[in-house]
Amino acid sequence: MIFEKEITDSLTLKFAEVARALNREGIKIISLGLGEPDFPTPDHIIKATYQAMISGFTRYSNPMGLLELRKKIADFLISSNNIQVKPDNIIITPGAKQAILFALMSILEPGDEIINITPSYVSYNPCIKIAEPKSYIIEIPLNKKDLSIPIEEIKKAVTPKTKVIVLNSPNNPTGKIFSYEEIETIVNVAKKYKIFIISDEIYNLLNYSGEKTISPASFKGVEDLVITINGFSKAYSMTGWRIGYAVFPKKLREKFFKLQQHINTNTCTFVQKGAIEAIDGDKSHIMIYNNKLKERAMAINNVLKSQNVVSFVLPKGGIFAFLNISKSGMNSNDFAVKLIEKEHIATTPGIAFGKDWDDYIRISLAADKDDLYRGIKIFCEFAKFQSKKH
Amino acid sequence: MIFEKEITDSLTLKFAEVARALNREGIKIISLGLGEPDFPTPDHIIKATYQAMISGFTRYSNPMGLLELRKKIADFLISSNNIQVKPDNIIITPGAKQAILFALMSILEPGDEIINITPSYVSYNPCIKIAEPKSYIIEIPLNKKDLSIPIEEIKKAVTPKTKVIVLNSPNNPTGKIFSYEEIETIVNVAKKYKIFIISDEIYNLLNYSGEKTISPASFKGVEDLVITINGFSKAYSMTGWRIGYAVFPKKLREKFFKLQQHINTNTCTFVQKGAIEAIDGDKSHIMIYNNKLKERAMAINNVLKSQNVVSFVLPKGGIFAFLNISKSGMNSNDFAVKLIEKEHIATTPGIAFGKDWDDYIRISLAADKDDLYRGIKIFCEFAKFQSKKH
Repeated sequence: MIFEKEITDSLTLKFAEVARALNREGIKIISLGLGEPDFPTPDHIIKATYQAMISGFTRYSNPMGLLELRKKIADFLISSNNIQVKPDNIIITPGAKQAILFALMSILEPGDEIINITPSYVSYNPCIKIAEPKSYIIEIPLNKKDLSIPIEEIKKAVTPKTKVIVLNSPNNPTGKIFSYEEIETIVNVAKKYKIFIISDEIYNLLNYSGEKTISPASFKGVEDLVITINGFSKAYSMTGWRIGYAVFPKKLREKFFKLQQHINTNTCTFVQKGAIEAIDGDKSHIMIYNNKLKERAMAINNVLKSQNVVSFVLPKGGIFAFLNISKSGMNSNDFAVKLIEKEHIATTPGIAFGKDWDDYIRISLAADKDDLYRGIKIFCEFAKFQSKKH
Repeated sequence: MIFEKEITDSLTLKFAEVARALNREGIKIISLGLGEPDFPTPDHIIKATYQAMISGFTRYSNPMGLLELRKKIADFLISSNNIQVKPDNIIITPGAKQAILFALMSILEPGDEIINITPSYVSYNPCIKIAEPKSYIIEIPLNKKDLSIPIEEIKKAVTPKTKVIVLNSPNNPTGKIFSYEEIETIVNVAKKYKIFIISDEIYNLLNYSGEKTISPASFKGVEDLVITINGFSKAYSMTGWRIGYAVFPKKLREKFFKLQQHINTNTCTFVQKGAIEAIDGDKSHIMIYNNKLKERAMAINNVLKSQNVVSFVLPKGGIFAFLNISKSGMNSNDFAVKLIEKEHIATTPGIAFGKDWDDYIRISLAADKDDLYRGIKIFCEFAKFQSKKH
């Protein structure tokens, strides 16, 4: 395949590397870079996985995934997200990222266009170009004021070649949860123009807003149009396990099945058993973690209110906050590089999430509260100092 | 991406499905279809994996793989295969199949040609077309008499567009182990015309011939040309774990790294720890298993010698034998379908391994010796009966 310029190194991973290098030199880093929950995988999930290993779940599974797991996921999606789905339309993949890739591979053909609402997860654009090097990515930025969906811009961007709109709520990097009305308008556009929606809902259990997250697949008449993506990395802290899934329209089944057979064979069999325990078992850790995330978001909010250089839209879910640094007068990459070099705070530059977001910096809420509090104070002082220079 | 016609369902998995369906009806099947070793993953590997899980190896790892694992693999390849390699040129993937896919994605561009020596593993052609839909696959069949490499045919097939030759020794489906001289001639062609070799060595520890397996990467002057593929599925019976690796030329590193970041993030972290134990720990089960495979190959040989309808070239490694059924007068698909329907023996039709092999049937040696012995007798009777009809 041709490696188009969009297939870049992941900037999040790059900054994590710089942080590790400084750490090795004995320099204490406040790490607000990577997107990994800061609690261990719950014990009962690990125990169930071990039990599966010693019970022989070390062999190939059904390529699409253990039927037991796909049934549990279907039940979960019906009750939690009002998504009516059969196990036959679910595929288990090594990570949600690969579920997104399979969706893109199954849909995009040369010359097709895809609407990517930004700021967006760093791997969407590379995945799109891996799936179809000759596709066109149309980046539509959220309204900067309130991070609402610019529906008129999206409608204007639709052409006969538009095949997919990518949605991610709760959103990485902003922590935005799109409202019922926002999702509904996107669903209506998709229905009117027969466009697929890839709805990445990986953070949907990390929601500290009190508002319900809305799945596009819960609307009527979209069974042929919506691919719902989710996984176990975030809510169950199973990042290193690599397990996610897609719910897909029946007409894409053959393609998903073929891709799975020739790319993965199946997802690790005993890891699938662990995921069954994650769905079935005690979930009390999730509410505890959401409370922590809320506390941390509020701590940031308190710091930001006390100055007028750095600002943000209060996040509602996920594990990130997206800070506007335009008053610093710097672009996001220079800001992030100087911040880690001078102040030893690792973050991710906004440019990684879309070309329109070069005056933003993403920070992770998956960090010790005191570190976070201290880090944000230094962050703001640094931005203020820079603003005076420019 | 465009799904070219070569991206078919895996025929091996398809026949396994038919066998499972008959099993559900209570019909006893002699299963000589799938390629899974018939021993459990050794206990010490499972224990080490559990230890890793409870020690926190549940988080993201270095995208390319744990450095400790890549070092062990480098040491192993130096000592066992005389492949000089640094950990930096190794990538850990969820299965060897994906390592092959990454190699193909990194090399092939539209219009490129690839030489696939057949009979070959069922997923090579689909993987090639997933990696680059606009590539051309040139299938070159082994000499049918002794399964030797037809070097003159290969030389004739080389054009300025030829980018890759795929090699697999010990071979699936034939059990052939290519000689030093055969590998050397291929290496010389690759060097002369600057063609990559993808050398799939997944069965290289399953070798009951007493002959050494030869890695193309062990020759001088090929460090820019050879990608060596291996994994843990076969020798350690870790099929369901999904872990393999590629050793690649330095110039492909950036591409492998990008693909890994955006497709896998990393391979399951604690599964990587299990693989470290596989390399480090007790390997006595491998010799025991090789003795069993040899016994089974000889049992088949004894049955085949006693009749003159079905023949084969005695396999030397891997877990398969490839039986010539040309005297039955049937094509391989009809033969395999009838065999499972009438005699309840699951096999895989030769056509799955290349268009020139429609008068062959693959059987697995990973089956109980008595079942295998009985199955082969019925197989031969069936072939004889068919030969009289045609």
